Amino acid sequence: MKAYTKQDFPVADIRRFLEPGPIVLVSSARNGETNIMTMGWHMVMEFVPSLVGCYVWSENHSFDMIRKSKECVINIPTVELTPKVVGIGNSSGRETDKFARFGLTARPGTEVKAPLIAECYANFECRLVDASLIRKYSLFVLEVVKAHVATSPRYPRTIHYRGDGVFMISGTNSSRYRKHFRPGNL
Amino acid sequence: MKAYTKQDFPVADIRRFLEPGPIVLVSSARNGETNIMTMGWHMVMEFVPSLVGCYVWSENHSFDMIRKSKECVINIPTVELTPKVVGIGNSSGRETDKFARFGLTARPGTEVKAPLIAECYANFECRLVDASLIRKYSLFVLEVVKAHVATSPRYPRTIHYRGDGVFMISGTNSSRYRKHFRPGNL
Repeated sequence: MKAYTKQDFPVADIRRFLEPGPIVLVSSARNGETNIMTMGWHMVMEFVPSLVGCYVWSENHSFDMIRKSKECVINIPTVELTPKVVGIGNSSGRETDKFARFGLTARPGTEVKAPLIAECYANFECRLVDASLIRKYSLFVLEVVKAHVATSPRYPRTIHYRGDGVFMISGTNSSRYRKHFRPGNL
Repeated sequence: MKAYTKQDFPVADIRRFLEPGPIVLVSSARNGETNIMTMGWHMVMEFVPSLVGCYVWSENHSFDMIRKSKECVINIPTVELTPKVVGIGNSSGRETDKFARFGLTARPGTEVKAPLIAECYANFECRLVDASLIRKYSLFVLEVVKAHVATSPRYPRTIHYRGDGVFMISGTNSSRYRKHFRPGNL
């Protein structure tokens, strides 16, 4: 599985990749340990600062790692990684070093200690900026502080989860209706 | 544009259609007026109760309609409706009756006064159950109290927004990896 060549990407524009709703891999680090979890429940919440809301179930090993380290990386896998995504989502970091078990490469970030997954199309380094909704909603409000995105292809073929073991694969991209947008709405 | 034939659908299972991240149309009603807005920033937050978090910009005409009526309907449009979705997102309910202008059919719901859009694949009747995050995050926490879903096709061809006038159209669906899930994770 090859690593993508990436470049810096404006954090205010990461909605390009998150708003379509892909399953993401969230990597974290704490006390010399790393972990990866799959996540399907997330939403863009603001452009500037670049906020993302994420639901992390309290039973996940990553829950305390992210809550206590106050950092993580949101990684966007493409369709080739589907078997690994399923494996990661169906094993626990309590028993497994997921980077080793699934043959993924941890790369250092620049703003956070959580590792980037080299084989993912994009990596968004995040800080936990609001922990007040964790208890009631398991909702982590994250700020993307640094974004790395593959230089090609322009848009990734992402995987989108429907529950019950069913994935939807992203299809074609079109700017056919762009001319009908008000400039301020683009 | 034809209306879909629909049946009742379990509210705990609506993630099948929302978690993949489509653009949705949100319909509302207040003081004898109706409106429709497009929405791309939303996330599933819980199965039971069936919670969905939605970002509604305070400048939208729908913002006060939903906030004050405490109700709305989340409608899922399919690719054939893209021109209408773009039109709805680039006009304001302050000046326009969007049902009339875009040739959409309002059908009564059973639990809320906000109208269902007959031409959409699915309609989720929602109540605003937590308004405490609106001021800080424009985040409406909604409970889906009734769901109506088309009897066919099994999965809709939805439209997913990337910003900058670019849409991604949902592609193929696959349960190929279902056998690798732990039963409790499906």
